[in-house]
Amino acid sequence: MLLREEKVFKDPIHNYVHVQDRTIWDLINTREFQRLRRIRQLGTSYLTFHGAEHSRFSHSLGVYEITRRIISQFERHHLEEWAVEDRLVALCAALLHDVGHGPFSHSIEDAFQVHHEDWTCRILLEDTHIRAVLEQVSPDFPEQVASVIQKTHPHPIVVNLVSGPLDADRMDYLLRDAYYTGVHYGTFDLDRILRVLRPYQGRVVVKESGMHAVEHYLMSRYQMYWQVYFHPVTRSSELLLRFIFQRAKELYESGYRFRYFLPPLEALFENRMDALSYIQLDEAFVQTMFMQWMNEEDSRLAELCQRFMERRLYKYVEVDYLDEERMEYLRRQWINAGLDPSYDLWFDVPTDMPYDVYRAGDKPTLQHIMLLSDYQQELVELSKKSDIVRSISGLHRGKHYIYFPMDKVKQVMPVLSKETCHLLKLT
Amino acid sequence: MLLREEKVFKDPIHNYVHVQDRTIWDLINTREFQRLRRIRQLGTSYLTFHGAEHSRFSHSLGVYEITRRIISQFERHHLEEWAVEDRLVALCAALLHDVGHGPFSHSIEDAFQVHHEDWTCRILLEDTHIRAVLEQVSPDFPEQVASVIQKTHPHPIVVNLVSGPLDADRMDYLLRDAYYTGVHYGTFDLDRILRVLRPYQGRVVVKESGMHAVEHYLMSRYQMYWQVYFHPVTRSSELLLRFIFQRAKELYESGYRFRYFLPPLEALFENRMDALSYIQLDEAFVQTMFMQWMNEEDSRLAELCQRFMERRLYKYVEVDYLDEERMEYLRRQWINAGLDPSYDLWFDVPTDMPYDVYRAGDKPTLQHIMLLSDYQQELVELSKKSDIVRSISGLHRGKHYIYFPMDKVKQVMPVLSKETCHLLKLT
Amino acid sequence: MLLREEKVFKDPIHNYVHVQDRTIWDLINTREFQRLRRIRQLGTSYLTFHGAEHSRFSHSLGVYEITRRIISQFERHHLEEWAVEDRLVALCAALLHDVGHGPFSHSIEDAFQVHHEDWTCRILLEDTHIRAVLEQVSPDFPEQVASVIQKTHPHPIVVNLVSGPLDADRMDYLLRDAYYTGVHYGTFDLDRILRVLRPYQGRVVVKESGMHAVEHYLMSRYQMYWQVYFHPVTRSSELLLRFIFQRAKELYESGYRFRYFLPPLEALFENRMDALSYIQLDEAFVQTMFMQWMNEEDSRLAELCQRFMERRLYKYVEVDYLDEERMEYLRRQWINAGLDPSYDLWFDVPTDMPYDVYRAGDKPTLQHIMLLSDYQQELVELSKKSDIVRSISGLHRGKHYIYFPMDKVKQVMPVLSKETCHLLKLT
Amino acid sequence: MLLREEKVFKDPIHNYVHVQDRTIWDLINTREFQRLRRIRQLGTSYLTFHGAEHSRFSHSLGVYEITRRIISQFERHHLEEWAVEDRLVALCAALLHDVGHGPFSHSIEDAFQVHHEDWTCRILLEDTHIRAVLEQVSPDFPEQVASVIQKTHPHPIVVNLVSGPLDADRMDYLLRDAYYTGVHYGTFDLDRILRVLRPYQGRVVVKESGMHAVEHYLMSRYQMYWQVYFHPVTRSSELLLRFIFQRAKELYESGYRFRYFLPPLEALFENRMDALSYIQLDEAFVQTMFMQWMNEEDSRLAELCQRFMERRLYKYVEVDYLDEERMEYLRRQWINAGLDPSYDLWFDVPTDMPYDVYRAGDKPTLQHIMLLSDYQQELVELSKKSDIVRSISGLHRGKHYIYFPMDKVKQVMPVLSKETCHLLKLT
Repeated sequence: MLLREEKVFKDPIHNYVHVQDRTIWDLINTREFQRLRRIRQLGTSYLTFHGAEHSRFSHSLGVYEITRRIISQFERHHLEEWAVEDRLVALCAALLHDVGHGPFSHSIEDAFQVHHEDWTCRILLEDTHIRAVLEQVSPDFPEQVASVIQKTHPHPIVVNLVSGPLDADRMDYLLRDAYYTGVHYGTFDLDRILRVLRPYQGRVVVKESGMHAVEHYLMSRYQMYWQVYFHPVTRSSELLLRFIFQRAKELYESGYRFRYFLPPLEALFENRMDALSYIQLDEAFVQTMFMQWMNEEDSRLAELCQRFMERRLYKYVEVDYLDEERMEYLRRQWINAGLDPSYDLWFDVPTDMPYDVYRAGDKPTLQHIMLLSDYQQELVELSKKSDIVRSISGLHRGKHYIYFPMDKVKQVMPVLSKETCHLLKLT
Repeated sequence: MLLREEKVFKDPIHNYVHVQDRTIWDLINTREFQRLRRIRQLGTSYLTFHGAEHSRFSHSLGVYEITRRIISQFERHHLEEWAVEDRLVALCAALLHDVGHGPFSHSIEDAFQVHHEDWTCRILLEDTHIRAVLEQVSPDFPEQVASVIQKTHPHPIVVNLVSGPLDADRMDYLLRDAYYTGVHYGTFDLDRILRVLRPYQGRVVVKESGMHAVEHYLMSRYQMYWQVYFHPVTRSSELLLRFIFQRAKELYESGYRFRYFLPPLEALFENRMDALSYIQLDEAFVQTMFMQWMNEEDSRLAELCQRFMERRLYKYVEVDYLDEERMEYLRRQWINAGLDPSYDLWFDVPTDMPYDVYRAGDKPTLQHIMLLSDYQQELVELSKKSDIVRSISGLHRGKHYIYFPMDKVKQVMPVLSKETCHLLKLT
Repeated sequence: MLLREEKVFKDPIHNYVHVQDRTIWDLINTREFQRLRRIRQLGTSYLTFHGAEHSRFSHSLGVYEITRRIISQFERHHLEEWAVEDRLVALCAALLHDVGHGPFSHSIEDAFQVHHEDWTCRILLEDTHIRAVLEQVSPDFPEQVASVIQKTHPHPIVVNLVSGPLDADRMDYLLRDAYYTGVHYGTFDLDRILRVLRPYQGRVVVKESGMHAVEHYLMSRYQMYWQVYFHPVTRSSELLLRFIFQRAKELYESGYRFRYFLPPLEALFENRMDALSYIQLDEAFVQTMFMQWMNEEDSRLAELCQRFMERRLYKYVEVDYLDEERMEYLRRQWINAGLDPSYDLWFDVPTDMPYDVYRAGDKPTLQHIMLLSDYQQELVELSKKSDIVRSISGLHRGKHYIYFPMDKVKQVMPVLSKETCHLLKLT
Repeated sequence: MLLREEKVFKDPIHNYVHVQDRTIWDLINTREFQRLRRIRQLGTSYLTFHGAEHSRFSHSLGVYEITRRIISQFERHHLEEWAVEDRLVALCAALLHDVGHGPFSHSIEDAFQVHHEDWTCRILLEDTHIRAVLEQVSPDFPEQVASVIQKTHPHPIVVNLVSGPLDADRMDYLLRDAYYTGVHYGTFDLDRILRVLRPYQGRVVVKESGMHAVEHYLMSRYQMYWQVYFHPVTRSSELLLRFIFQRAKELYESGYRFRYFLPPLEALFENRMDALSYIQLDEAFVQTMFMQWMNEEDSRLAELCQRFMERRLYKYVEVDYLDEERMEYLRRQWINAGLDPSYDLWFDVPTDMPYDVYRAGDKPTLQHIMLLSDYQQELVELSKKSDIVRSISGLHRGKHYIYFPMDKVKQVMPVLSKETCHLLKLT
């Protein structure tokens, strides 16, 4: 059902986000979707780039808007490979794909073994306002939308639209994160890419004439990963978060009595959350807990929370390699100096970084970008045509870092070996 | 003392914020300054413009950077009216001028009679990390910086730089708020204005050749006020906040036992905060309290918190006038209908809006923008020279609004008079 | 007839200009339209703002694109007041409205009594490639398009779209001229304005909710006129042009034999051009003539051409008033000093400036911007609702300038009165 | 000598260009420098990207401004490796480095064997206004500036600043060409790069911490070359120019009497130009000649000029390879069909394209970008550290194109072989 009059949201990236369907409007107004205003899009990156305070709410609207524009282009050109009845399910999946993100997702997911995709589906399917809105379309509509998230929807093009190598998600976040951080890397020609996307054989492909715009997009992505998403200062703040969650969980499991504790934590620690308790977890809540815990009796928890809230991060040094021997040597040095290697030391090796690189491949899968030649007869995988994409395909900047609390380490310098001091650039 | 090497912050508005002084660097790293990351620059405006999630931390860095650029220009041109020894005190005051802002300042200040300027001074002067850093410059340096905030510093030009009609504060927030909301109104030519500022007779004046850039700045300001800062949706969300704070205070004073309560609240409610407890108040804390209070026994408090957290705001209608008679009539209608006019109804009249308009005046004060003629002989107040500034000087868009919870009012429509329904555009 | 595939032009203002109709494509490829590449959009403004080298070709594509977007919005919303059969005629008129502009139009039109609107119609109707393309639509199509330019087309909304107070022409040139000069004044929210335009009672009106965007557009226009279009340095260069054309015409009419002369000039001087000879006049041609005339025997013509080509412009002073007495006094001073007041002196008074101001009026005409209230019942003229538009309506910055060749005047300073020297700020 | 007051030019790329030295101001006002307003920065690219109408005048100011900013940074940091007395010579060389460019340089240089670098030096050293201004600094100052252009100046860092792998020339043109064409590829973080440049051992090097900004710059350059500078439509228009110059020269040398001819051509054809006649050659002049030649008796010259002025370019097809056999085959086909392969056919092979690629190398030369490690002890060539630069180093997109006049070729299709028709995609 269409709204009587189109509604718009003012947006710095897309200028306006246009809403025409009542279902979309109602979904945006659910409490579960509004909660995304309290989850930052880039987690702790705001501690590196102070402008990066934007929320997943903004990003989700942006993903919806890009999807809307792609579909509207498909329909304006009467492209036969696109089924109009897939429009609403695709738009809903685009809007809701991140609704299951928890506070500081990457760190909390590691500590508590939760997965935001699972939570997205639970929020669509359990007893939530979102489910109620979706059910007004049809009783099985919540399941339909969830199947797009789970990549099991019977029409592969819908899945490919929402999570493929040129999906609306990635296009929005590169542009948005570049805008809010203020870096220049993330800009590419979105209009051009949208103009050359075509539905073809159950996937979204690119007209060959748009190859250069796609090259530019992939180079932006490469730069954003290494300059923004994996910035060592951001890694350092994520590390603190991980340590905090880990410590709090250990304490809880060991029967420690917290001075400050609020109900939603119990469900989290005991791993028995439902959708309703889950959506109470937001970054305001986590920060407030940390603020209180700065005065906890457990000195490790208190210290970690103070460091996070006051941004006294661990320092990092880049080293040429990190093998088991070197790591073991440092751990022993730490113990000798009275430091705890499980909290006062961390090694970051490239294979740990979730780099969403574009990889060429001999057997094209749905994760490959396919070019459609002008005569519309054949699909060719992008790196076959593009020298520059072939050059950077699979390229992985493997830097090794050691993180540690400089203030504490400086105090024990006399006990450390010369080699260690040299490696850590202590002076 | 200068840093061994200049440090920079990447910033979307100024591209980079440059830090050269150790004192500035240390101030930024205090916990009191880091707390500003958890206070939004535009309070609840993010509920109207979803991009407006930027913090006072970002803005404070921006104000510092603009001040630094103005002073550096003064010094590069060896302008005699500027005393180099005022540099550091001006930079510190610029950086710290907002450090006393509480969560959702405008609303909380009304409810609890706190003033952020007072708190800024207390944070500079009480036992804080900021005070400790400032004291390293000289024992009376904290007082010096505070005197700039209080506008009592002996050199009026320092005060004028930090809070005058063309101060760094306003210039940064117009540009920054325009960028983050995505509106186009707030852009003006900052570089041009900075180039034409001159220290002259104890104030910052503008070279006459820069008049057009200043006109543009004032028009931007005019538009930002009415299009962004006083947007009725934002006013509606501030209203909810004010009601929540008011209700919670009433309950506390009446001895109500809150199910959910965290320590800093007590000091707030009892009006006996010191700087250390004050800085525990941030927006994460306030939102977490509201989240918990959604389940409070007091149904009014619970309702208001739910509305705020789920963004179910009061609706507004614009009306042609609002006099005491009409307001009284509506209050009575409310009571007849079983609604509480002190919580379910609100009138917004233009005189309540803190519009920081530029006003011409016959007797130029420090709040006037003065043009310095090319021959450097005379100062003329801007509106004397600029037709457009004279035209909009003091212009005040007086719209009258009524706010009310549409869902509840719709249920009592049968009891309301025809006139009321017509006025509120109920159908 | 639609093109098999949409064509695009990369454009800095609109990102892409989209062409879907074969007629539009063919018109762009005519030699008459291609000639616009050799006519600058802003005449001599590039001598003030070096970036302003953009052509009327770019601008014409922009006007077409904005018109296309407005119409496409009308049609997407199935607005009954818009007749789909008017689409092509409106697009062609938008594209071609400037095709009759000569080189440095404003100056040449004064000297030779030509009017670009007349020439636009002649180029549409005489034996040109453009006429041939238009005739392929229907035999009377050239006349239809011309009638839009002449404002006699039977459907007033088509005329209003191409030349009304919010027409595509003005919207494109404000944005484009701001972009190429690099000034910030000209930016407004084009997308927003396009979204709120409606066809209504034979004119293009604005939904009331878009009032602020229109205010912003009018303020941009005000600033662009006084900061860019009427910049005194640009006026000074136009003055030289006018003098050159005037001198050359005088010489021709007096039987002077030019050393350098190319065919199209003859038709121009003898006022017997047809469309084919007219389109040979472009700015390359005019500049080349001037370049040659730098070596003409007539020293006045040679001097003026040298000044223009080498940008040695007349200086200007702003004076408080210019009445007949003062002007006469200066002319006499000039004669006394052996200067020629008809070439070495010029007075610029505000009434000479073609300021396209927005004027409120009691009787709304097609030149007024009308707001359509939300209930779609009544039209109100903009300044009735907008304080700021009312304030600046009809506002005219009347500055008086005197222009003169500083180098020559300096040499005769001893002969000039003290008063004259003071007025002209000679030292 | 410094100006009494700094002067500025409004510039879309750098916002303002700042002039502080009288010498720079006077140079800008010479007729030789003003002539650059009539030479487009990108030659015929405006026929592909209509916005690219910007002049070498704008670009030259931009190169000057970037150089000024680099030097000012060197001096602000009191860097010892930079000699303050080199400032003015570097600024003059930066400003003037392009002053010898002729109209549509790339095409005219091929036809007439002129080199713009030679002409730059002649304009500095012959009897010009520029020479007169430079001599006011000191009698040998013109030679000093020329020696920077010729890369023989005794201080290699001055040469490296004006023409090195990270020189002000390239940085300005990438940003400026991207802005005026409207493409997104050319943007990189200029401020960041300027901040990390250091004078070191007679060259400009980059602090290692700025590596990513330099990577981004090189990727922009890569994209600009293949997407803008070597765009096949631009190549096609350059081809026409080359054919026109070649034909006119042949005719002149064979004693043909031109109907339309202006003095500067003679000197050009007879290869006996001096600086004064050279500067009369500008693009207005060339276009005016072409306009007249559209009516020349020689039908080939007339046809080529009509094609250029009316933008009826040769079409192109991309082919998989072009060896001597295939080219010879096509030339014979052309002759059979009555076409002239020396004017109606052109082959473009990658090795003809002057791609200014960044190449890594084992022996670092002045054309390599060197990183300075944080401890300031060693220089490392960029590609040793940067995976992505190593990947694209020397990468050359070798496409082969055939150009031909489609209208004429279509008419002789029956005579052409099936193979030819297939290769040229004729249908």
